Amino acid sequence: MKCPMCGKEYTEPIQRCECGEPVEFELFHGEPYIAKSVWERFYDFWPVEPNLELSLGEGDTPLIRSRLGKELGVKLYLKNETANPTWSFKDRGTFLAMSYAVKVGYKAVGTVSTGNMAASVAAYAARAGLKAKILVSGSASDEKLKAVSIYGADVIRVMGDYGRLYFESLELGEELGIYFMNSDNPFRVEGYKSIAFEIAEELTPDYVLIPTSSGGLFRGIAKGFLELFASGLIDKIPTLIAVQAEGCSPICRAFSEGKGRIERFETPRTIAHAIENPYPPSGNVVLKLLRELGGKCVTVSDEEILEAQKRLAEEGFFVQPSSATGIAALKKLNIPEEAKVVSILTGSGLKTISQIEGRSVRECELEKLEGCLKSDS
Amino acid sequence: MKCPMCGKEYTEPIQRCECGEPVEFELFHGEPYIAKSVWERFYDFWPVEPNLELSLGEGDTPLIRSRLGKELGVKLYLKNETANPTWSFKDRGTFLAMSYAVKVGYKAVGTVSTGNMAASVAAYAARAGLKAKILVSGSASDEKLKAVSIYGADVIRVMGDYGRLYFESLELGEELGIYFMNSDNPFRVEGYKSIAFEIAEELTPDYVLIPTSSGGLFRGIAKGFLELFASGLIDKIPTLIAVQAEGCSPICRAFSEGKGRIERFETPRTIAHAIENPYPPSGNVVLKLLRELGGKCVTVSDEEILEAQKRLAEEGFFVQPSSATGIAALKKLNIPEEAKVVSILTGSGLKTISQIEGRSVRECELEKLEGCLKSDS
Repeated sequence: MKCPMCGKEYTEPIQRCECGEPVEFELFHGEPYIAKSVWERFYDFWPVEPNLELSLGEGDTPLIRSRLGKELGVKLYLKNETANPTWSFKDRGTFLAMSYAVKVGYKAVGTVSTGNMAASVAAYAARAGLKAKILVSGSASDEKLKAVSIYGADVIRVMGDYGRLYFESLELGEELGIYFMNSDNPFRVEGYKSIAFEIAEELTPDYVLIPTSSGGLFRGIAKGFLELFASGLIDKIPTLIAVQAEGCSPICRAFSEGKGRIERFETPRTIAHAIENPYPPSGNVVLKLLRELGGKCVTVSDEEILEAQKRLAEEGFFVQPSSATGIAALKKLNIPEEAKVVSILTGSGLKTISQIEGRSVRECELEKLEGCLKSDS
Repeated sequence: MKCPMCGKEYTEPIQRCECGEPVEFELFHGEPYIAKSVWERFYDFWPVEPNLELSLGEGDTPLIRSRLGKELGVKLYLKNETANPTWSFKDRGTFLAMSYAVKVGYKAVGTVSTGNMAASVAAYAARAGLKAKILVSGSASDEKLKAVSIYGADVIRVMGDYGRLYFESLELGEELGIYFMNSDNPFRVEGYKSIAFEIAEELTPDYVLIPTSSGGLFRGIAKGFLELFASGLIDKIPTLIAVQAEGCSPICRAFSEGKGRIERFETPRTIAHAIENPYPPSGNVVLKLLRELGGKCVTVSDEEILEAQKRLAEEGFFVQPSSATGIAALKKLNIPEEAKVVSILTGSGLKTISQIEGRSVRECELEKLEGCLKSDS
């Protein structure tokens, strides 16, 4: 393993470099096989044997051509990660990290999250028969935590500086034998490569739109395409576009200002809570990747996000606000006509349903149903 | 098409026989192909060309070996239908019915439902660019309807006898050119065959546990296995087990009393609202199938359902109460050891999250986190 920032190498799978940055596995090379799951088809590319007994069926999600592309002048495809076992892309990373945790004998795992990742780690820990310690912020709503505690996890509301928890949990975890698989855990990042692999099985995109918070998903997808390219399996790497919410966009800010390092985003505020990370632990690495690969970073307003969420639903995809950022960004980008664009729909709208304003519902007497059906709402 | 009860034949795809029973397509025969989607692999078996442009990626859901089987003395597999585009099995039926509606030129579709089917029809109508008329009962909660109206459907609360709506909607729909794809619509039933096909691709079950309400899902799975058998693709038909909630079990009651027809179940009451149909429109046909195929009908209490829901979550599957009925039933059945059993997990627990009692959540000061992590909840 290697630190992508300072270059220091490690022989054991640790989580963060001495310099404070995330470490990552070097590029894997290989060839694809014929098999049912993405874990088997891309068997050469994982840093740990995927333990299929722990699988809940994550990955191999639909890639669907979208009508919205027509009006935007591109060939648009939606990668529907809401069809995962806990209804977000997190399951791919959790599965691989869990394969490692079980292999080396951990009896407990943990994560710092109130949303998609919390539910994912709780579910896979249950599947593996391990204890799960889920650390949530003091302000997390009871409603949201129901979808986590149902899996039998030990949910702990931590009062204090939530930002410190990421690092605190890694240290304490190491000490106490709890494997914390936080947002950019090295195995988690490796798991997200599977999204790039599945896309490449179906088409060669020109652009990929990636909602970006901690940076784990962006790094995973980038590494996946880099490995396919290095293995001679694709002949170009798509332009990767990190999308952030205007109200919390530390990576885009540093990128546009030409800085080499991100700075904490003060008073973050966006409806897209799943990507509301003011100081992304993989922010600097994403910044570096954006520059090296010629990527872009785009911010979108809450209004644009909600509009995109509505448009996606009107085509049959009900996603959470963070998942709609890719489509919101597409309108602001100057993408050549007929380019092939993939947008990642990261998680289900059912998880943030309290944020949805219900549309008007008509009332009708059964006796007057014919008239009601004839008229429009 | 033919009425499975009175035997009357029809040349056009109507929805119900003159005798009041559902009509259905005769058995299809064929062979499987190598392809990505179940619609293509079992191309010979559909009554209408599957219109893949309308697909949201339904079907091809995971079939996962469950640890729960061990303590119950069987080989248990879970068919996870919560991984569908609107997070329930309904999407399979909606897709095929929508393929038909678009083919014959309908501009509007509809359904009578407040839950999974409402969301599914709304989503696929949006995908197809058709209007959707969703008829819900006067008592449907605003919360529940949000997940339907988000897709842009015209949601109509109908005041009056909700039981009459099923038939009323079919009549008015025919008159007004709105294709109502209700719970046991003939194309819907055909779509559910895909579950049987996918199971058969992976294993030959001895038993299949099917949460049963209108009877559409049961009929679809049964027809799927019958067609595979008739085509020489499997060498036995598994024992099909209809599972109903004790508080609303018109089919099981008629079955155990040896009656040929179901009777309306007065004052239905169960936590499993998705299968709370007091007078299932396909009830008589399911009854007939159970007798002809040597099936079983089992009822489970709300307490047993909630316990099974909890047990499933503790293995990583968060399902709605109706989806846990199969596992609840398994405990009450005398199934031979080592039998291969498949239970259908029909829909996501996120849809009924308000029914979940949150488990206790601990509080902890950041400074005391080490101690909190050491202790158990």
